[in-house]
Amino acid sequence: MKSEKKQQEEPVSKLKIIPLGGLEEIGMNITAFEYEDSIVVVDCGLAFPADDMYGIDLVIPDTTYLQNNLDKVKGFVITHGHEDHIGALPYVLRDINVPIYATRLTMGIIENKLKERDLLNKTRRKVVKFGQSVNLGQFRVEFIKTNHSIVDAAALAIYSPVGVVVHTGDFKVDYTPVFGDAIDLQRFAELGRKGVLALMCDSTNAERPGYTPSEKTVGRTFDMLFQEHKDTRLIIATFASNVDRVQQIINSAYKYGRKVLVEGRSMVNIIDTAQKLGCINIPDNTLIETEELKNYPENKTVIITTGSQGESMAALSRMAENTHRKITVGAGDTVIFSSNPIPGNEKSVTNVINLLLMKGADVIFQDVHVSGHPCQEEIKLIYTLVQPKYAIPVHGEFKHLTAQAKIARDLGYTNKNIFILHSGDVLELGRDSAKVTGRVQTGEILVDGLGVGDVGNVVLRDRQHLAEDGIVIVSFAMDGYTGELAAGPEITSRGFVFVKESDVMMEEAVSVAREAIEKVSARGISDWNKYKAAVRDELGDYFWKKTQRKPMVIPMILET
Amino acid sequence: MKSEKKQQEEPVSKLKIIPLGGLEEIGMNITAFEYEDSIVVVDCGLAFPADDMYGIDLVIPDTTYLQNNLDKVKGFVITHGHEDHIGALPYVLRDINVPIYATRLTMGIIENKLKERDLLNKTRRKVVKFGQSVNLGQFRVEFIKTNHSIVDAAALAIYSPVGVVVHTGDFKVDYTPVFGDAIDLQRFAELGRKGVLALMCDSTNAERPGYTPSEKTVGRTFDMLFQEHKDTRLIIATFASNVDRVQQIINSAYKYGRKVLVEGRSMVNIIDTAQKLGCINIPDNTLIETEELKNYPENKTVIITTGSQGESMAALSRMAENTHRKITVGAGDTVIFSSNPIPGNEKSVTNVINLLLMKGADVIFQDVHVSGHPCQEEIKLIYTLVQPKYAIPVHGEFKHLTAQAKIARDLGYTNKNIFILHSGDVLELGRDSAKVTGRVQTGEILVDGLGVGDVGNVVLRDRQHLAEDGIVIVSFAMDGYTGELAAGPEITSRGFVFVKESDVMMEEAVSVAREAIEKVSARGISDWNKYKAAVRDELGDYFWKKTQRKPMVIPMILET
Repeated sequence: MKSEKKQQEEPVSKLKIIPLGGLEEIGMNITAFEYEDSIVVVDCGLAFPADDMYGIDLVIPDTTYLQNNLDKVKGFVITHGHEDHIGALPYVLRDINVPIYATRLTMGIIENKLKERDLLNKTRRKVVKFGQSVNLGQFRVEFIKTNHSIVDAAALAIYSPVGVVVHTGDFKVDYTPVFGDAIDLQRFAELGRKGVLALMCDSTNAERPGYTPSEKTVGRTFDMLFQEHKDTRLIIATFASNVDRVQQIINSAYKYGRKVLVEGRSMVNIIDTAQKLGCINIPDNTLIETEELKNYPENKTVIITTGSQGESMAALSRMAENTHRKITVGAGDTVIFSSNPIPGNEKSVTNVINLLLMKGADVIFQDVHVSGHPCQEEIKLIYTLVQPKYAIPVHGEFKHLTAQAKIARDLGYTNKNIFILHSGDVLELGRDSAKVTGRVQTGEILVDGLGVGDVGNVVLRDRQHLAEDGIVIVSFAMDGYTGELAAGPEITSRGFVFVKESDVMMEEAVSVAREAIEKVSARGISDWNKYKAAVRDELGDYFWKKTQRKPMVIPMILET
Repeated sequence: MKSEKKQQEEPVSKLKIIPLGGLEEIGMNITAFEYEDSIVVVDCGLAFPADDMYGIDLVIPDTTYLQNNLDKVKGFVITHGHEDHIGALPYVLRDINVPIYATRLTMGIIENKLKERDLLNKTRRKVVKFGQSVNLGQFRVEFIKTNHSIVDAAALAIYSPVGVVVHTGDFKVDYTPVFGDAIDLQRFAELGRKGVLALMCDSTNAERPGYTPSEKTVGRTFDMLFQEHKDTRLIIATFASNVDRVQQIINSAYKYGRKVLVEGRSMVNIIDTAQKLGCINIPDNTLIETEELKNYPENKTVIITTGSQGESMAALSRMAENTHRKITVGAGDTVIFSSNPIPGNEKSVTNVINLLLMKGADVIFQDVHVSGHPCQEEIKLIYTLVQPKYAIPVHGEFKHLTAQAKIARDLGYTNKNIFILHSGDVLELGRDSAKVTGRVQTGEILVDGLGVGDVGNVVLRDRQHLAEDGIVIVSFAMDGYTGELAAGPEITSRGFVFVKESDVMMEEAVSVAREAIEKVSARGISDWNKYKAAVRDELGDYFWKKTQRKPMVIPMILET
């Protein structure tokens, strides 16, 4: 009775949903849910650098908003263990040291990361079971079982005084999962029946009609491939974190009497963690070490490896490029890509395939993979079970969010109940209202080596300029007393022209620089910046005329 | 009788087939056919730079082999007018000024290129009709009608004293082409019946089962899209050179009473040429200029534009980025990509799609395109008609060539009759023999601005290093007499760290450099290279320790 009464009183405050990343891109998922004095943060992922972010290792979200509201932040609630959902934690925890809530394998993977950075003892952590809830200030967050391309993925029901928000996390509907239960559709239905304020649903595959096939279909493909390739060694590349995929390869290997070697540090780590937590079942005497490979006939072994995306440092790429210290690929090997290229990786993947074929290996790279995200019919199923008042497509580029919005419209939602948010938008929800009321600071913080945020737009623009046209350095000394040229100019270049074949031009460039300096000097000017500007302009024009390129020109003045 | 007798005498010499590019890649197609004193060159294309070829505009083949045999070279025989088959001509003709043979539209496009570079009057050209042959030294080359994504594409029958080689060029089998006749399958059959020594067949789509649909199917899709979008302006992006595609858009526009604007310089040029040569049929009062757009209701216009590959300077990208001076895209526009992304362009295309969606446009980017290359069943058809003794898959990366080789094996060819060549291989053919007997020089010559070949591996490696980690410049003056530091060191950096936030490190770096210099100086060394090495090493170590980055360190010494 009391709860019914409570539901009827309209709370004074609004629920704020503030995506701090993850929209307009795939990656860097992080969303703040704020109600009065409480903030809960869902996920804390990284993004991989865009092609023009030269030299950048990874990108993490700007969490200034959370830092400015540190006393409100109750914890990080993590949906699953993929990098785009957990990868920024080790960086963000330095400033925002609040507890982490996650399911078993997700927490296992997070703990590996924290260990590497000596953060394990400094971070409070709680493993949550499916069906359990955690109370976080004015919020209660319930973990709901889903299926995804990693074990232990969760959707969240986020209970606030104004209503329940269901966040699907990344999911698919798999009625016959490899490990554990199917997605808890009954719970989605139950929540829907009681009333859901908003649904934040995965948009990755919203452009694709139909259903994503069960992970088990890949197992059947493996069985077929093992059957068809009894005479060769098998090398199977897949995503390091896809424990179910590895399980199925091991199942086929066991069935066909092959030993299994796992190659690639990230995969070894995750399989190790999964094994400790009981998320993978490996028969005794199945796994072998690299050194043991030679003890078995080639056609009695399988190598499961990283590198399915053509990543240059991954094990498979090293095998393809002959730089793997222990494994040589050639005729007599069948290499299977159990993956699709992530958009942007097509060329690197193709490059590895070509190299493997040239070495005489047989390469299979089509139809040995299924996605971990929902296609259109699965999205419709979730909407139909949850029946939210408001639809908030998440996890995707703008075109994916738009595609989910279209699905919502097909289901009868009108544009005023669909919110395509941008990172930084503040969406305020009441029981019967929803409106974007403001924006908070968001952004991309670039990580390069040890530096976090010390490479910004200026440095990146310089790198792009240097990459495009190279650099010309002009060094000379000025007599601080007479204001005359005391030594130089010396000129050197990098990434501009092949110097040996351009010596005439470079000699002429010295004269151009000298004239520019002397012209300023003759005017009795002592401001060194004027000399620099003159050298930059004159040499810039000269090189453009000669080459139609615009190298960066850097004058260096010493005063004697 | 005489010819029969001649056929029975085995000629003393062999036919050499020497691909100088176009294998291990899509692009830069150029193949030399050599018999005794005669060389015929088929195609002369460019390649677009790989992702790590920073700053490079385009890539052309190394034609040293042809230059070294200049007196033998009888001419360039061109299969069709795509850049990867004609784009290097303006560069290569400077050294190898021999006649060009091509069909009508192909020659029209080549002539546009030659005009731009003032080469038109210096180049001998002959337009060849389908069914005609040209005699080139000991060769006769016959042009055979095919279908492709550009009008007037030709296959070649290359007659040599040891036999006939059929080169398909790029083709598809289109029984219902938009312009002109279907591929001359009867001629392929006739040649096959008489006996063909070798078939060089397009491998681009050799991985794809089935048949490539007719270009006309896209016309039907356009009709449907025009019917469904009667209320919005239409903006349709496609390949500049796909004249048939433009024809079909114009057909639908005419049918639905819309005016047509063609946007993008390359497309305007090609349509203009096609119109002059009668390869496209545009009803009067259909084309309009940009300025006239405003005179018509938006839903009575169509803009056909370049930029379907997300090229940053193309018209569509400029519309998406609000930098097009005359056309603004927004709600009320339906943008159609009549194209698929070429591998490697996926991200740029997606980026443009996202920008257009954000501006409120409706964007259609699936299933409004067909390929211009043959799928597996078409390749089988050609093999079955031509029945060559030897199969030489061409036009593709290694994986595509391998896929065609597999098709050939399915048709009964054995590996000893299939040749997967590498650029530079010399394949020697007799009437009953085929063997790779040697290699000639080949390579990629990089074009950057006005420079052809002045950017090589050293410059590229420097650009990659600069892009990755930036540069630190250390300038100092040494007293040539005392061997002591006379001025500096001054340090500046670009693309390394954001200087304002790293001033402590940069100050420390000055000390590190000074100590390194003084240490060498104290040992009485006067070889400046020793000073440079010391500065490079000490600063390199220092920066690595501080940042885990390896900027290029350039010491500049002035002698006073």
